Amino acid sequence: MKNQSGENKVTNKIKVKRMPKRGFYDLETIYKILDDTFVCHIGFTSEGQTFVIPIAFGRKDNAIYFHGAKGSRMLKVLRSGADICVTVSIIDGIVLARSAFHHSMNYRSVVLFGKAEEITEDDKKTEALRNIMDHIIRGRSDEVREPNRKELNATSVFQLKINEASAKIRTGPPIDEEEDMGMNVWAGVIPIKNIAAEPIKDDQLNKDIILPGYIKDYMKLKQL
Amino acid sequence: MKNQSGENKVTNKIKVKRMPKRGFYDLETIYKILDDTFVCHIGFTSEGQTFVIPIAFGRKDNAIYFHGAKGSRMLKVLRSGADICVTVSIIDGIVLARSAFHHSMNYRSVVLFGKAEEITEDDKKTEALRNIMDHIIRGRSDEVREPNRKELNATSVFQLKINEASAKIRTGPPIDEEEDMGMNVWAGVIPIKNIAAEPIKDDQLNKDIILPGYIKDYMKLKQL
Repeated sequence: MKNQSGENKVTNKIKVKRMPKRGFYDLETIYKILDDTFVCHIGFTSEGQTFVIPIAFGRKDNAIYFHGAKGSRMLKVLRSGADICVTVSIIDGIVLARSAFHHSMNYRSVVLFGKAEEITEDDKKTEALRNIMDHIIRGRSDEVREPNRKELNATSVFQLKINEASAKIRTGPPIDEEEDMGMNVWAGVIPIKNIAAEPIKDDQLNKDIILPGYIKDYMKLKQL
Repeated sequence: MKNQSGENKVTNKIKVKRMPKRGFYDLETIYKILDDTFVCHIGFTSEGQTFVIPIAFGRKDNAIYFHGAKGSRMLKVLRSGADICVTVSIIDGIVLARSAFHHSMNYRSVVLFGKAEEITEDDKKTEALRNIMDHIIRGRSDEVREPNRKELNATSVFQLKINEASAKIRTGPPIDEEEDMGMNVWAGVIPIKNIAAEPIKDDQLNKDIILPGYIKDYMKLKQL
């Protein structure tokens, strides 16, 4: 469970208990799922109440990065050293079986546990922010205006190391009971895809500015 | 904040604090977002650790429904009356501003708080399971084999009433600083869509079974 950039602990907490065959613990699999999306759901508890907040993230080496407004409730709880859970899920298909019971989803998910650490040094903060942006669209960070002093001060950046993590994956057709196989019911998979539609340029965009190559590359990646 | 099927309490906990203009509390808006997707992330806390688990759900009137294997860790915690948080998020676009700081997402999210209640009566359980299936693909539940005794016993079904909920929505173009408007940077929105690709029929599907109308209807709904 080790690679050049980190180590993953397969603790009892992280172990996939329901459908253990769908559980994966190698970092390569975990990284691939994290890199195929850019929104995670962060779970934390404050005064006995659990909160789940969707947020954009980036990954580099053995950590994920995310940011928010300095004073946000969630980031205050994270700063206090809370044991958080970060979950990423990608739905790849709806699995239609002959019986209601065997309906399922094809999906890839990752669950990470740990304590998030705040990144406070300016250069590391800027690097993490670039990483989040490029995780969403590779190449974007080279083009935009970087955060100024005021903007950087207003932004808190956190990392969560990937060292207590699991992936769960289901692929393939429905698995029905033998006695249902002759039923007159359509069975199969409807693939679900997250795609990018034609970019809509800002009304006030200078007429000379054409769609940059890295956005064209992104569109190719995210087409049907 | 009331409609025919329920009432939503805008408690301090549920109030959208960051970007309050993006907060909505009317049930119509909340229902619409819940109905536009079928996977939620359930957050709960057990022995001081927060967990976030993605799961399919359905909505009918003023409640959402979800199910799982009877013995699952999550359902045990829910049965004990834990204060859970259920979050749904739909990403509609990547908002590319001229400055790094003003990058954003167009999204629609819902956060629900409450205690989930187990549904134990057979007929209500079956109805809730049908609701979950039809929430994913309308019409599917009429065609499939219903759960038998053993399957129904192995499945736990829960509802969470929608009475402490908020939605958060961002739409539209990037909002840049006045002084950045002349920059030579492409700005605009890349729309993101969740679409359904051509259904893949099960290898063992009887050759006479054609794609049913309700799946064709679904494909039309989920095309680009």
